[in-house]
Amino acid sequence: MKSISIIGTGDMARAIGALAVAGGNTVEIIGRDQSKSTELATALGGGARTGDFGTAPAGDIVIVAVRYADVVPVVAQYGNALAGKVIVDISNPFNSEADGLAIPDDTSIAQEVARAAPAGASVVKAFNTVFGHVLKEGRTLDVFFAGDDAQAKAHVSEFIASIGLRPLDVGGLNMAHWLEGTGLVLMGLARHGVGQWDITLGANGFDD
Amino acid sequence: MKSISIIGTGDMARAIGALAVAGGNTVEIIGRDQSKSTELATALGGGARTGDFGTAPAGDIVIVAVRYADVVPVVAQYGNALAGKVIVDISNPFNSEADGLAIPDDTSIAQEVARAAPAGASVVKAFNTVFGHVLKEGRTLDVFFAGDDAQAKAHVSEFIASIGLRPLDVGGLNMAHWLEGTGLVLMGLARHGVGQWDITLGANGFDD
Repeated sequence: MKSISIIGTGDMARAIGALAVAGGNTVEIIGRDQSKSTELATALGGGARTGDFGTAPAGDIVIVAVRYADVVPVVAQYGNALAGKVIVDISNPFNSEADGLAIPDDTSIAQEVARAAPAGASVVKAFNTVFGHVLKEGRTLDVFFAGDDAQAKAHVSEFIASIGLRPLDVGGLNMAHWLEGTGLVLMGLARHGVGQWDITLGANGFDD
Repeated sequence: MKSISIIGTGDMARAIGALAVAGGNTVEIIGRDQSKSTELATALGGGARTGDFGTAPAGDIVIVAVRYADVVPVVAQYGNALAGKVIVDISNPFNSEADGLAIPDDTSIAQEVARAAPAGASVVKAFNTVFGHVLKEGRTLDVFFAGDDAQAKAHVSEFIASIGLRPLDVGGLNMAHWLEGTGLVLMGLARHGVGQWDITLGANGFDD
């Protein structure tokens, strides 16, 4: 069981929050709009609580589930309130056509989060290659993640497993750029190759 | 049934060639070293023939199965001999650590091939997200591909289906950059998340 804080009250916050509660984790929901976080925490049940935006989150793992352009500003605003936390970036910085990234080629939102994060915090990229609406279905999905801190990755991996998903490490935080690109491939598949949105990406063959 | 030329005599040429023959396609093997192409064509059987390097290939689909750094030079050397062909780039331009790409961020080998290709040729990126040694096993795998020419993609898709694999279009040739990055994710999974090499990437959910 993990103690999780989720910053955000949108679809991904709701999908991950519901799985986290079902998996027996302690869940805190944090929104700028207290009425939205109260609504979501109540909807999640399972003892989910709300926290005050900008103050130290209760959870050891802090999932930043806001629009990609807001992720780094939110982490910067939190500053030392995130010291010692495992910060999970789930964002997809897609351009308006969702066929390229909206950030420079030599970085990723996760790497920028690492630059903005306080000393002692660790950053893990995860969940950006799964659609929120597919997460909600409760199927067993592969969740790719990347990061430089083995301990932080172990915590995130355990959390992912606790919610019935399969955690798959793809390497260091430099791989976050390519995970963000893999998010584009998932979009492309949904639009072209498969033509529907009820899909996931996964690794096959090793335990099928 | 398609008419396929494969430039190259390495592992990927062998793996794709074997599947192409088994799928009833006409196969031509082209190498700089005639003894190697003769050996491979003989090993493939099924009427596989050899062609002369640098002259117009017999196949409608020309799969360039050489080291990534040689792909664009080979296409440039062929020049007008590739007019009217569907050129398939299968390369992975990995850096020495295979955790980043060895080419500029704003392009891909496939896009560079398109610049080097003669008028009337079309370029499709395909097969770079499957390992050659997994292809050889004969399992049903997902093959992601990208390109700007719908007709060329239809031909490649039919070829992929003819060899027992599942063709999945991810969009325009600009997506080739992200397919090359997805090749890195596959490498990362094999090294970290899965810890073995007998895996594939795939899209799940739409016909399982």
